[in-house]
Amino acid sequence: MWVEAEIREQPERAALLIREGWEEARRIVAAARRFDPALVMLAARGSSDNAARYGQYLLSVFTGLPAALATPSLFTFYRRPPRLHRAWVIGISQSGRSPDIVEVIREARRQGGWTLAITNDPGSPLATAAHAVLPLRAGEERAVAATKTYTAQLIALAMLAVAWTEDPALREQLQSLPEAMRQALDTEAMAREAAACWWRAAHGVVIGRGFHYATAFEVALKLKELTYVVAEPYSSADFLHGPIALVEPGFPVFLIAAGPTFREEMEGLARALREREAHLTVCSDDPGLLDRGQVRIPLPPVPEWLSPAVAVIPGQWFAVALARRRGLDPDRPRGLQKVTETR
Amino acid sequence: MWVEAEIREQPERAALLIREGWEEARRIVAAARRFDPALVMLAARGSSDNAARYGQYLLSVFTGLPAALATPSLFTFYRRPPRLHRAWVIGISQSGRSPDIVEVIREARRQGGWTLAITNDPGSPLATAAHAVLPLRAGEERAVAATKTYTAQLIALAMLAVAWTEDPALREQLQSLPEAMRQALDTEAMAREAAACWWRAAHGVVIGRGFHYATAFEVALKLKELTYVVAEPYSSADFLHGPIALVEPGFPVFLIAAGPTFREEMEGLARALREREAHLTVCSDDPGLLDRGQVRIPLPPVPEWLSPAVAVIPGQWFAVALARRRGLDPDRPRGLQKVTETR
Repeated sequence: MWVEAEIREQPERAALLIREGWEEARRIVAAARRFDPALVMLAARGSSDNAARYGQYLLSVFTGLPAALATPSLFTFYRRPPRLHRAWVIGISQSGRSPDIVEVIREARRQGGWTLAITNDPGSPLATAAHAVLPLRAGEERAVAATKTYTAQLIALAMLAVAWTEDPALREQLQSLPEAMRQALDTEAMAREAAACWWRAAHGVVIGRGFHYATAFEVALKLKELTYVVAEPYSSADFLHGPIALVEPGFPVFLIAAGPTFREEMEGLARALREREAHLTVCSDDPGLLDRGQVRIPLPPVPEWLSPAVAVIPGQWFAVALARRRGLDPDRPRGLQKVTETR
Repeated sequence: MWVEAEIREQPERAALLIREGWEEARRIVAAARRFDPALVMLAARGSSDNAARYGQYLLSVFTGLPAALATPSLFTFYRRPPRLHRAWVIGISQSGRSPDIVEVIREARRQGGWTLAITNDPGSPLATAAHAVLPLRAGEERAVAATKTYTAQLIALAMLAVAWTEDPALREQLQSLPEAMRQALDTEAMAREAAACWWRAAHGVVIGRGFHYATAFEVALKLKELTYVVAEPYSSADFLHGPIALVEPGFPVFLIAAGPTFREEMEGLARALREREAHLTVCSDDPGLLDRGQVRIPLPPVPEWLSPAVAVIPGQWFAVALARRRGLDPDRPRGLQKVTETR
């Protein structure tokens, strides 16, 4: 029952982080600005890497800096790290104990880059290695699959983005996020309905675009971890470049879309999927798009840049419901440990 | 029969590109060096994006610059492109006609970045938009699924990397590549054996690490395009962070490993997979690792940094053999066109 409790905890943890972490986020951004970075590099694994994918889009939009996801094996196995003396390097890890991510931060600092750790453990090796740390304040996460630490990581990144802009309107939007997350908790019944349709699915795809590319990755990962469905994440653009060949009648698709940017493209994709007789679950704030789905999960309205912390919640419910329906224990996925140490 | 013919054409196309394209690659690198970039950014979709992934590792190792994969929707849909006045921006596209990739190049050039097009069509909009173009010289590709243009893209990136180092030993290694590719064509029978084992598979995973992260993506994409198997690519590190939960007895895994860097890690992963009774196909130059596989596809020896252009060939054979075995026409995957235009 840990995972359900931790999903429910998310709005209050979000509110706590936004309240207590704000001054830290401002100080971190002030220091980053003094450093005057030429690029942002994000290093992470697993769920944290999905959060990093959100960070890649969000920090690039709000800071105007090019943002890259790190390739940690260049630092560890190949021992050929790139030059990072002008980079703001952000390591993201729930435990702060992934050796390859710690090594990226250490090397960047050695070279004169400016380093930040985003972690739930401010005493961890990652936190110790970095110039600064933004603690997630998510409390202990007992379920193996990350939920509340994932949304906390998204929010930590959003706080940095807002602090960079110094725009009070954006800060107000951020402060309204926990309430939208609370409303998203009510999607549990609809997510259970989607799980009933996926009951026998051995595989499927999860599609999201832009800021929701991250959401697609995270929902697909939850499905793999908790239900053993081979669920692959796609941006709608990449999906059209080949993998759409997969779709045959009944092929299960979980489509996530929130905000106006991709409305038209997502409409077109949903139409194409229905023409191929895919089984479509739509998770969206747009009534027209929802209408295209056999299962419809409406999202509360929230500014698009913040919507990943909201839209992932029905995805978490969906994975947990599908696990329960299949008689699996979502707190104890087979063969996974809470902390995976990769080099 | 186009796709088989195009797979077989690869060594001679590679030799032609290395011979005729070398002076161009040198001039391009000389111009890039004069520009003195602070980072490399690669923009692509589909198979070309898999080549870009190789470029991200390779150019970072050989130039020492941080290398990022672009997020094209920031340029098109969000209209918030990052600052690229210090970036070397490389657009990769077989057709040169993907509107979003053209837009990344145009915007980078507008900002004062230095831009290069790698394309099979030197008269395409992508080629016209960029400061310089490196044509792939692959001849017309008639099959919908990219094969010879993919290896040509890898080789074009390798030529840039070698030209950057000005190391004649590396150039000699590059010149030996077509011969290794020729030897890899002989893996067709083994790939057919792997296809026999995957005959009934609805899904599976393809694993590669470092330079072969790209190979894993490309082999998985060929499987999806040609055989409709839901094949997901992973680095071994990411696979251990969650998705290993998927593995149950008989779960099909295609493991690609060449070169010494990850030998030990891949050994450990292969052991773990066999303990879980996965069905393991190993494609490697290492006899010990090959021994772990139920199906073994030996690769000819070649320097690790060049091995992706060799190791993808048995993966191409594998996808084609599986398509044929399932009575599918690998030249005409359902619902795909040769050129996909995404914004």
